[in-house]
Amino acid sequence: MTSEMFAVIMAGGRGTRFWPLSRRNRAKQFLRIAPGGTLIQSTVARIQPLLPADRILVVLGEDQLDEAARQLPGLPPENFVVEPVGRNTAPAIALASMVVSDRDPDGVMVVLPADHLIGDEADFRGVLAAAGEAACKSSVLVVLGIRPTGPDTGFGYIEVGEMWAEESGRSIHRVGRFVEKPTRERAEKYVEEGFLWNSGMFVWRASIIRDQIAMHLPELQSTLDGIWNTAPGSGRSEKIREVYPELDAVSIDYGVMEKSADTVVIPCQFGWNDVGSWSALASVWKKDEQGNAVRGQVVTMGAKRCVVSTDDRLVALVDVEDVIVVDTPDAILVCRSTSDQKLRDLVNLLQVSSLDRYL
Amino acid sequence: MTSEMFAVIMAGGRGTRFWPLSRRNRAKQFLRIAPGGTLIQSTVARIQPLLPADRILVVLGEDQLDEAARQLPGLPPENFVVEPVGRNTAPAIALASMVVSDRDPDGVMVVLPADHLIGDEADFRGVLAAAGEAACKSSVLVVLGIRPTGPDTGFGYIEVGEMWAEESGRSIHRVGRFVEKPTRERAEKYVEEGFLWNSGMFVWRASIIRDQIAMHLPELQSTLDGIWNTAPGSGRSEKIREVYPELDAVSIDYGVMEKSADTVVIPCQFGWNDVGSWSALASVWKKDEQGNAVRGQVVTMGAKRCVVSTDDRLVALVDVEDVIVVDTPDAILVCRSTSDQKLRDLVNLLQVSSLDRYL
Repeated sequence: MTSEMFAVIMAGGRGTRFWPLSRRNRAKQFLRIAPGGTLIQSTVARIQPLLPADRILVVLGEDQLDEAARQLPGLPPENFVVEPVGRNTAPAIALASMVVSDRDPDGVMVVLPADHLIGDEADFRGVLAAAGEAACKSSVLVVLGIRPTGPDTGFGYIEVGEMWAEESGRSIHRVGRFVEKPTRERAEKYVEEGFLWNSGMFVWRASIIRDQIAMHLPELQSTLDGIWNTAPGSGRSEKIREVYPELDAVSIDYGVMEKSADTVVIPCQFGWNDVGSWSALASVWKKDEQGNAVRGQVVTMGAKRCVVSTDDRLVALVDVEDVIVVDTPDAILVCRSTSDQKLRDLVNLLQVSSLDRYL
Repeated sequence: MTSEMFAVIMAGGRGTRFWPLSRRNRAKQFLRIAPGGTLIQSTVARIQPLLPADRILVVLGEDQLDEAARQLPGLPPENFVVEPVGRNTAPAIALASMVVSDRDPDGVMVVLPADHLIGDEADFRGVLAAAGEAACKSSVLVVLGIRPTGPDTGFGYIEVGEMWAEESGRSIHRVGRFVEKPTRERAEKYVEEGFLWNSGMFVWRASIIRDQIAMHLPELQSTLDGIWNTAPGSGRSEKIREVYPELDAVSIDYGVMEKSADTVVIPCQFGWNDVGSWSALASVWKKDEQGNAVRGQVVTMGAKRCVVSTDDRLVALVDVEDVIVVDTPDAILVCRSTSDQKLRDLVNLLQVSSLDRYL
């Protein structure tokens, strides 16, 4: 590759699905819920064999900055790209692409969510390298497509089109189309037809994504260009703080990928897990013979298929089944396993019940 | 009545059934699990309209003394009768009867467990007064028999014999026989046949129970007589500490009541609740529309028939049913409601798992 590769880690998420462990200022990516550090620490460690720390950028909210800097002391302070408010992924990626362009106008960007797990990290890096080569040589937007393990309705799907190229022994296909989170029935059909999950991981040249954003979200790109052309380096933050709240909140998938003609997909199978819920952790944590996945000091008696997380206290389970128990210093959750998608509603309930202090 | 009435509150119990709220040094009677103070405070308050504080004795273990004195500041220090080790109810009652005899050789003793609840307290005191009259006038051992609300297998049963007397408008019957905790089938039969629950509440003259103990548990009585005859007041504690560990651990029911010919029973119906388990609390605490009985800051979403106790932390329940959740500063219990009798086994498990610090 002639151009340098940069990682852009998307860490602005406000996950409520891991309440009470995740809170307003300590979202899922900052939690130590899998082996090997917090999710964002693992995300950084995973790509470090591929590129140096000074080319790893993290996009995040202002109030997440302290925690991120604390967890990632190896990254240069200027690599934290702060969004004044969350406006979904398109503005975040557009902002990051400006920063990457400043450092290397031909730079290749690898966009990675901060809060996923990957089983086969060497394979993952192999895919990124291949995608980087492809992005370097052409003007495509590369998306990593995950081979589904089942008809999950929580992901967007990608139809795999004709073969486009082979790079480092990995085949790259044109994207047939992107489809949003489907119904169960449709998801089953997609899995049968060989669709892939949209992983939210992308590879492209910074200059290319800027062109594509200029084409499909012209207001967003012109706003950022305006700031970059008029404000000096140190005045930009001020300007960004001013204009960012007025930007439309739109995802890069909806805003650009679905509309672009130049999208390609690499089918991947490296043990990807988006750790979308407490139940999803059960597949990452070691389980006992009764199927209980626990973290911390836990005693079970007749308990089956429970997920327990505790830091300081002993948790004793007697004869309960399929229950999630999460202990934190000020709040405890006891939730039926199949209801863990309701945590978003629970967090809303706490808010309207004037229990904000637990958020 | 010519003789004075004394209450003897049996507070030596080591309830494990309320773990983790109850611990080695803070047994059930010292817990604030029902309205109106801790169970022992309620027990004392309940009888105070009937007799002054200086005639209320509390039998308990040495390590329970501080907590009891703290909770019952109105009782004279000399009214706490200390057992060096627990040896079931017969030695405790024998020891208390010596103390009562010292104060009034004709004294009437009302023996009351420290950890029960009573709905109709006026009626309860009426029964005690009537029983006291009967005990005063004759040499019977009076037991309070509770009309069963169902075929509970957790209590001993009493067969009601012929009418023996009427006192203050309450009929007193001879005891047909005492039966130990029955099987479910037998319990159903007993309920049909009008048997009563053995409440563990007794009324008798101190001199009479001493005679009965001398007859049925001669070694116990002669040991105590020996101490009282040879050691002066202040040397007795020393002597008791020496000999008590060697006494047989036997219940007053098995050791005396079942063998005595002079037992009578008063049928009672004053909303008695022995609060024998977390589930039993559900009938004492106010419930919400979904049947959840909670104490402390609790938020429920789809939860049904749960019992929750928390002091400092928020507990959030999502879609769980028939579960007991108990939060304490160092341990949390999550237990299926119908399994709350297994807490004894759980406490044993903690012990063998070197988790004694949670006991």
